[in-house]
Amino acid sequence: MKLTILFGGASFEHEISIVSAITLKEKLSGFDLSFIFCDQDHSFYLIDPLKMKAVTFSKGEHKKMPELSISKGGFLQKSMFSSTLHKATVVNLIHGADGEDGTMAALLDFFSIAYIGPRVDASVFSYDKRYTKYLCEAIGVRCVNYEVLSANEHKNIKTPYPIIIKPARLGSSIGVSIVKDESELDYALDTAFEFDSALIVEPFLEGVKEYNLAGYMANGEVHFSIVEEPQKNEFLDFEKKYMDFSRSSQVLEADISDDLKQRLQNTFEKIYKNLFEGALIRCDFFVVNDEVYLNEINPIPGSMANYLFADFTSSVEELAHSLPRPKRAQVSYEYIHSISQAKGK
Amino acid sequence: MKLTILFGGASFEHEISIVSAITLKEKLSGFDLSFIFCDQDHSFYLIDPLKMKAVTFSKGEHKKMPELSISKGGFLQKSMFSSTLHKATVVNLIHGADGEDGTMAALLDFFSIAYIGPRVDASVFSYDKRYTKYLCEAIGVRCVNYEVLSANEHKNIKTPYPIIIKPARLGSSIGVSIVKDESELDYALDTAFEFDSALIVEPFLEGVKEYNLAGYMANGEVHFSIVEEPQKNEFLDFEKKYMDFSRSSQVLEADISDDLKQRLQNTFEKIYKNLFEGALIRCDFFVVNDEVYLNEINPIPGSMANYLFADFTSSVEELAHSLPRPKRAQVSYEYIHSISQAKGK
Repeated sequence: MKLTILFGGASFEHEISIVSAITLKEKLSGFDLSFIFCDQDHSFYLIDPLKMKAVTFSKGEHKKMPELSISKGGFLQKSMFSSTLHKATVVNLIHGADGEDGTMAALLDFFSIAYIGPRVDASVFSYDKRYTKYLCEAIGVRCVNYEVLSANEHKNIKTPYPIIIKPARLGSSIGVSIVKDESELDYALDTAFEFDSALIVEPFLEGVKEYNLAGYMANGEVHFSIVEEPQKNEFLDFEKKYMDFSRSSQVLEADISDDLKQRLQNTFEKIYKNLFEGALIRCDFFVVNDEVYLNEINPIPGSMANYLFADFTSSVEELAHSLPRPKRAQVSYEYIHSISQAKGK
Repeated sequence: MKLTILFGGASFEHEISIVSAITLKEKLSGFDLSFIFCDQDHSFYLIDPLKMKAVTFSKGEHKKMPELSISKGGFLQKSMFSSTLHKATVVNLIHGADGEDGTMAALLDFFSIAYIGPRVDASVFSYDKRYTKYLCEAIGVRCVNYEVLSANEHKNIKTPYPIIIKPARLGSSIGVSIVKDESELDYALDTAFEFDSALIVEPFLEGVKEYNLAGYMANGEVHFSIVEEPQKNEFLDFEKKYMDFSRSSQVLEADISDDLKQRLQNTFEKIYKNLFEGALIRCDFFVVNDEVYLNEINPIPGSMANYLFADFTSSVEELAHSLPRPKRAQVSYEYIHSISQAKGK
């Protein structure tokens, strides 16, 4: 089966996406793979698989490779006298802006290109942490209390210290700080506002358990990965996350009760259904006083959370065959015809 | 000032968009206007302004006009030996799918084309009536109670009759029914499910007052239209709405107290701010027992609700000069550089 890994993007997570794509080259070697890179100027390039190395991009060598344009049914490569349409199911592996904010989903849908990844709605609800909170409230999933801070309004923070401050629209811990008391506040706000004009403030919960669970819908049901208890530093900073995105060896299942596992899966399914179809997502949960809380949704997890699946290749293949088929409205010009007839043309 | 009216789309509201564009040709005649039509197959055409008539499209005559492709900074017209980039601020006038669901917003953002219209997030929250409810709950705006029905699950409706049944993702009253008792239910469900796999069920409120208010953000503040009390049939069906989209003469201001007007404006502002910047939207409100309820958000109202503005041309010009400027992340390859250095290249 043919698959195109689409990566890069004009995003703070651009480099993470490159690492993710390099990891998938190895993990998905059973597929007929091609690689399309979106650079920070929104140009697309067809990358020689042998050149799938981080330095290719940091040195700008991709610019010597064929440029593509997105087109109906695929990516078009033009030469002097002919053009080739590259058609394959796309794996949207652009983390952060462009990939997870709904942009790439809309482009791929508009140009009728099949893809693995969140659709536009799902992207909006997972990319902006405020909207993830709205979703939780609406569907009855617990999440940590929060306040929103905007760059253009002064507001006193009501949440007692320690608190965690996050840009509303970034993943991979970029711009995130734990603030233990007021003396650390200004620096944390400055850091976070560098990345976004809206911030989320949450209480920093000590002693919580964290569990990650990935999954996807195929053949009408949700298929779950194992549950992982991620390594616990205070939280993963950017450099640790960066390395984390290249993970490729399977991890051990968390030692939890069947009851808790079931509740994590039920919560995952509540979030996924009728919204995330077409995507393999990872939900990061907190467990506090034996209650499950959603921390965040990763609609395009690093290297597709391959390390959580026993048979990653089969999972991707199964998902690729269960993608949502968008129904496009047919236009009949019924009203215009009836009006022009009524007017006697 | 140059403006491009972008209209059509693969949408059940395709014909309405054509009527809307024809109306704006007249109402925005003070601008240097061009017209780009998106047909149901997602091809773009540059329409001769003299051919801006409904029959041009129903007869397929647009196919004889120059085809365009969306490209960085504008729409590209290619001929044998040269190409022209059509650059102008776009007015997104595609109603329903493609225009109001975030697709066109994502395309225009990705290709760095300035546009009047809702951004991706705002589109998602207004296009799907379920998500409008989520938004209301989150920001503290009253809305009518609702239930969701899905095509693939059987569920008993709890709301007492009479009820109103609406497809979750369509505007212009398409597929909407008022159901007075159970005998009318099956037909109403069949009709609505023809258009969408998810439906909203609400109590049909009798004796409510309805008020429409439009507005847009420019120079840091919200500018409001007059408040209109729309003509009250049971509700506007598709044919009446169709005619409604060609409205061009200014309407009379509703006879309401200053206090109510203020509360409608405050509610509008709560909905608009930090979400709808860049768009001229119309909010349709209900007033029940002197309380303001949001009924729906029209992020691209028919013919831009021109009939609610005293000086429509100036309003559009003001908005066109206050569009949000997307901040694109700069990529430095800092991590890849530091890793390759650590490795000694």
